[in-house]
Amino acid sequence: MRPLVRKSYRIAVVGATGAVGAELLAVLERRGFPVANLRLLASARSVGKKITFRGDDVRVEELRENSFGEMDIAFFSAGGDISRKFVPLARDAGAVVIDNSSVFRMDPEVPLVMPEINGADVADHRGIIANPNCTTAVTLMALYPLHLAFGVRRIFASSYQAVSGTGARAIAELKQQVAAAHLNSPAIAEVYPHPIAFNVLPQVDSFLPDGYTKEEMKMQHEGRRIMHLPGFLASVTCVRVPVYRAHSVAVSAEFARPVSVEEARDVLAKAPGLDLLDEPARNIYPMPLQAAGKDNCQVGRVRLDCAMQNGLAFWVSGDQLLKGAALNAVQIAELL
Amino acid sequence: MRPLVRKSYRIAVVGATGAVGAELLAVLERRGFPVANLRLLASARSVGKKITFRGDDVRVEELRENSFGEMDIAFFSAGGDISRKFVPLARDAGAVVIDNSSVFRMDPEVPLVMPEINGADVADHRGIIANPNCTTAVTLMALYPLHLAFGVRRIFASSYQAVSGTGARAIAELKQQVAAAHLNSPAIAEVYPHPIAFNVLPQVDSFLPDGYTKEEMKMQHEGRRIMHLPGFLASVTCVRVPVYRAHSVAVSAEFARPVSVEEARDVLAKAPGLDLLDEPARNIYPMPLQAAGKDNCQVGRVRLDCAMQNGLAFWVSGDQLLKGAALNAVQIAELL
Repeated sequence: MRPLVRKSYRIAVVGATGAVGAELLAVLERRGFPVANLRLLASARSVGKKITFRGDDVRVEELRENSFGEMDIAFFSAGGDISRKFVPLARDAGAVVIDNSSVFRMDPEVPLVMPEINGADVADHRGIIANPNCTTAVTLMALYPLHLAFGVRRIFASSYQAVSGTGARAIAELKQQVAAAHLNSPAIAEVYPHPIAFNVLPQVDSFLPDGYTKEEMKMQHEGRRIMHLPGFLASVTCVRVPVYRAHSVAVSAEFARPVSVEEARDVLAKAPGLDLLDEPARNIYPMPLQAAGKDNCQVGRVRLDCAMQNGLAFWVSGDQLLKGAALNAVQIAELL
Repeated sequence: MRPLVRKSYRIAVVGATGAVGAELLAVLERRGFPVANLRLLASARSVGKKITFRGDDVRVEELRENSFGEMDIAFFSAGGDISRKFVPLARDAGAVVIDNSSVFRMDPEVPLVMPEINGADVADHRGIIANPNCTTAVTLMALYPLHLAFGVRRIFASSYQAVSGTGARAIAELKQQVAAAHLNSPAIAEVYPHPIAFNVLPQVDSFLPDGYTKEEMKMQHEGRRIMHLPGFLASVTCVRVPVYRAHSVAVSAEFARPVSVEEARDVLAKAPGLDLLDEPARNIYPMPLQAAGKDNCQVGRVRLDCAMQNGLAFWVSGDQLLKGAALNAVQIAELL
């Protein structure tokens, strides 16, 4: 780790015009991150756009191989192909890269970090730090405190993922399809392989030979690295739902030690970055509409799992653009 | 069992003007059920409405205590309160009742029947036969053939349930909320405790003291009766999604014997009332938009569960107004 000991930092944002890029700038502003200098980088077609940051208009520049001179921190959220090519260049130019793609997450030389869980792993970085998958991040915000209390062994989980996880084009596609449905005209599906309006798609990302999708296996692969639990098992079904923003996950978790709902609620209520919304009698539980735009994830529906020993079932919602992406990235930068 | 040995039958339909009632009449027509005489019964406010059945207009009559004279079969789908009061009256008047409410499903004197699974149980009826919960029915269409092959022990499941499961008012509520969202005006939530448009609600039916909802526990309770498996365990999270029609369920199932994906697919492909849609490489899998309006349920995403021994994960979609209600009820009548 090269310690960053400035009073303020020269920041590059790659993918500045995307959904996560916009959130990232908003989080940097909101949390008062000490930005000395901001360079906004994007593809050629966005060059010249102006984005307001702390009252100043900042021009978007084209991402080039030599874009990273004199930068302290580079945030990447422009997809895997861009990260694969430009992250090493940014690192070699001297920046610490915080990468939101999945390219480096399983690289043993790259720490994969959620500050509430394994913030200390940042110390091992060699110029690149990976930000976790959004569904994994939202789930672990609730699972990790329970793990500390009871020792998690495995989970069975199903996700309800918002279209903004795919990006701005998917948001537009859902809007178009909803409008078309109400005019009884056909839905045009370009971003997803099937219509998403008034439908659910049991596919997020591409399929692996074993029948799981890449997205589904991230929970186990990334969960093991982030929680330092090489034996952690996770069987997940990832499903896209017609929700604009915030992912939700239904979880059945098995623990090594006996569990109680009271202790679980107590642990969750005290966990950082998490709000316990668990008053079923008053219809209070997490929902995506309610989690959207919030830094904290939400957990509720906590109950003893009726089909396993030492099991807890629960439901978590969280804004995947914030905790699942931009917020976590800025929190990593704060650790630096 | 009182055998019905007529060539055609005098049929009463209670709740004829509801969503399930309409499907029931359509299924009776479509399957050419031998109807000698049709009496449509509903609440006072629907009296006088005319419903076309096989080209004839049939007037809706008010449901009264003496509505069931000279009826052979009475279908009930007008909610629990109506069933609690009128089902015993219909039975005492000599009709065989096929009841779609949950009132009699756990009554040991009332068979709870899915014809593909435990059709023989119809023989034990004493005038009342119960139709299963819709989410349970859709799930068991895929789970039971796998059980026959491998011996199911327990499942972990999450549902994606359409608003038509709640009825016509919920369909209207989703439509209103979608229209309101696109005008940026507030969503009015009357049927559900929270907006359902562009949201998901981790609540279907009311909560039990242990934190599960009634709907969630039906999978275990009804599954045990239908499959004749008193030790069957099911931990379920039931979630309402902004889909108009057809429920979906993500399932992780543990079996007593070793499983293989090939054998599982083979068994599912041959199962009655079920279509195997499982070609992930071509983006072919069940979805509610595709299952809506179809008699057969659909199963896909079949894979070895990565978090349990002898486990299979799969995904099933089915039209809950058909297999989950009207179709199953008519199939029961056909067994009579």
